[in-house]
Amino acid sequence: MRTLCPALANKTYFNYGGQGPLPTPSLQAINSSWQRIQELGPFTNDVWPFIEQETARVRQALAALCGVGSHRLALTENVTSGCVLPLWGLPWDGGDQLLISDCEHPGVVAACQELARRERLEIRWLPVLELCRTHDQNALAAAVLASLEQALTAQTRLVVLSHLLWNSGSVMPIAAVAARLKQQPNQPWLLVDAAQSMGSIPVEEAAAAADIYAFTGHKWCCGPEGLGGVALSQRLLEQAQPTLIGWRSLRHEASAASSFHSDARRFEVATSCVPLCSGLATSLELLEAEGTPAQRLQRIQSGSRRLWQGLQTIEGVKTLLPEPPPAGLVSFTLAGLSSAAVVESLGEQGLWIRRLDDPDCLRACTHITTTDTEIDELLEALSALA
Amino acid sequence: MRTLCPALANKTYFNYGGQGPLPTPSLQAINSSWQRIQELGPFTNDVWPFIEQETARVRQALAALCGVGSHRLALTENVTSGCVLPLWGLPWDGGDQLLISDCEHPGVVAACQELARRERLEIRWLPVLELCRTHDQNALAAAVLASLEQALTAQTRLVVLSHLLWNSGSVMPIAAVAARLKQQPNQPWLLVDAAQSMGSIPVEEAAAAADIYAFTGHKWCCGPEGLGGVALSQRLLEQAQPTLIGWRSLRHEASAASSFHSDARRFEVATSCVPLCSGLATSLELLEAEGTPAQRLQRIQSGSRRLWQGLQTIEGVKTLLPEPPPAGLVSFTLAGLSSAAVVESLGEQGLWIRRLDDPDCLRACTHITTTDTEIDELLEALSALA
Repeated sequence: MRTLCPALANKTYFNYGGQGPLPTPSLQAINSSWQRIQELGPFTNDVWPFIEQETARVRQALAALCGVGSHRLALTENVTSGCVLPLWGLPWDGGDQLLISDCEHPGVVAACQELARRERLEIRWLPVLELCRTHDQNALAAAVLASLEQALTAQTRLVVLSHLLWNSGSVMPIAAVAARLKQQPNQPWLLVDAAQSMGSIPVEEAAAAADIYAFTGHKWCCGPEGLGGVALSQRLLEQAQPTLIGWRSLRHEASAASSFHSDARRFEVATSCVPLCSGLATSLELLEAEGTPAQRLQRIQSGSRRLWQGLQTIEGVKTLLPEPPPAGLVSFTLAGLSSAAVVESLGEQGLWIRRLDDPDCLRACTHITTTDTEIDELLEALSALA
Repeated sequence: MRTLCPALANKTYFNYGGQGPLPTPSLQAINSSWQRIQELGPFTNDVWPFIEQETARVRQALAALCGVGSHRLALTENVTSGCVLPLWGLPWDGGDQLLISDCEHPGVVAACQELARRERLEIRWLPVLELCRTHDQNALAAAVLASLEQALTAQTRLVVLSHLLWNSGSVMPIAAVAARLKQQPNQPWLLVDAAQSMGSIPVEEAAAAADIYAFTGHKWCCGPEGLGGVALSQRLLEQAQPTLIGWRSLRHEASAASSFHSDARRFEVATSCVPLCSGLATSLELLEAEGTPAQRLQRIQSGSRRLWQGLQTIEGVKTLLPEPPPAGLVSFTLAGLSSAAVVESLGEQGLWIRRLDDPDCLRACTHITTTDTEIDELLEALSALA
């Protein structure tokens, strides 16, 4: 996989959580797809079977990873579309509470705030960041569930929690949270931001348990930017109306009087870039050839452990987590230097990590393509800066 | 231009209004853009200037075509996103009326119906199809304005009208409609579906006059599928809140507490496919090299006139319009054969037109790449079928 990625040839790359490298075979597949569409179409009876084939191929692959039937998988442009679109058409009542973890991405938080403003809902916060700092992964699940227990009220209608937290890198106990929510009298919806989990850890159990499990293909799956997906629960499909409605949402695309698709396509919109489907499908096949999600996670963990352990030995460095990370995200601070200055200085050496605002920290990611040599280079460069 | 399009090499193509052919230089630009992103990034400080440059390039080109400043131009995935997204965050009051022409695309109609359901608005219809059938283009503008006059009420809050009607192929007097709406006490919003006008007729005056002027790059502009745009009025930018909110909507992407962009970016969402920007920018340059929008329209009209005139001579064929079309869409019926059967039969001969449901008819499009020989082939094939 590593040698297939031109992005990894001329730099030392640790920003997989921002965007993954695109393997050359995936770019070739995108190109071939475009050429085939031009050859058969672009708008002819001859091209529809090809378009249906490429769309179905990636939908099935993503649905299989999520452990759900294809009818529960909608293709989206990005994580945000998958998280936010299904929310607007849920049956809200004024005073309903949205319980949002304190580790969610600003985009999803801002969307929930706007939803709350318009529908007169109330935002409540679920504290998990401090738990991540102080608990090892074994104890964390119980601590998060206890925090949830404290925060839940009879008015809670939605819980927003990422599967793999983008800032601390901790894994949240999604299936257990889903099970707990089922016991509430009004069964709150569970929205899971899967931007960091899809392609980096096994997601089957969590995706099948959530109501909205939204991800992108362009981070850990190493697909092209501009294509993602969302796995939706059966009850959500039955109760949520689409909001961004176009010909793909409609059962009969030629008629507005027809009803919406009853499956996840009701949340798809209109024309999108079909060749991206061919690219992402290829990237998923390349990843699969490297092992099962569980096997790949072991390789990812082996890199993040090496990095986490190395960081412990550098004066002035403090990792966010008290133990080696459960996946590929390693967050830390370096005393005495602004995180922006560290990113810039490392970048000048061809080493790429990123900074986060909340909490203010640095984040380096290891994927299955990360080598020990790269990790040691990063550690050396950080030692020199510290 | 024609020789640059592989799609036109192996078929006789009249479905530009469905999807335009992608010129090889545009596909090459898409590829180069992807390669450059992998070389510089994909997620590094080195890549941001390139991404900003490619995004700004297409935004500026589209804004210039629309006769508005770049700050009023949002990039979207498709026409539907551009039409529908700005609607949801407008300040609606129960009982407001949406006045929709009877020639709008089912996607936009279904979205308005769902908006009306949730916000308790009322749908009214603006009849224009029958006017198209019975008036020549000179008389049509006045007839449409008279129809509008009859339909407007004190409760009208939005008018939905395409610039170039996708079924009849008539041009609507958008600037005059906008001027009339300004005289209403509550100044209704004007939403213009520009799917068929952008890239086929000059749009500057209409785009600058509308509140929402939404189009795609993949039809008459011959760009890649999955990228479009919307020109928004200053008052809409001030009064409409974004609904599908992601990091691109936020002034400071790292903070949900920050406000939304005050310019059109407030309606952009999250990660999309940047290489598509490079492709569309290239297609727009190729079109520009063929002449001004007005000069290109003359060539388009010369083809549609030849086709319209030829259709008059075929027994059993009836054109929707009583005179040669003002742009490149030529709609007609053929007595005695279902429109689906005609499409299929022509397709078997490598001739591609499409059918529409409402009204049930056939539609053939001529673009600047259409040759007289192609038109004559289509006429011959239709004569043989008739």
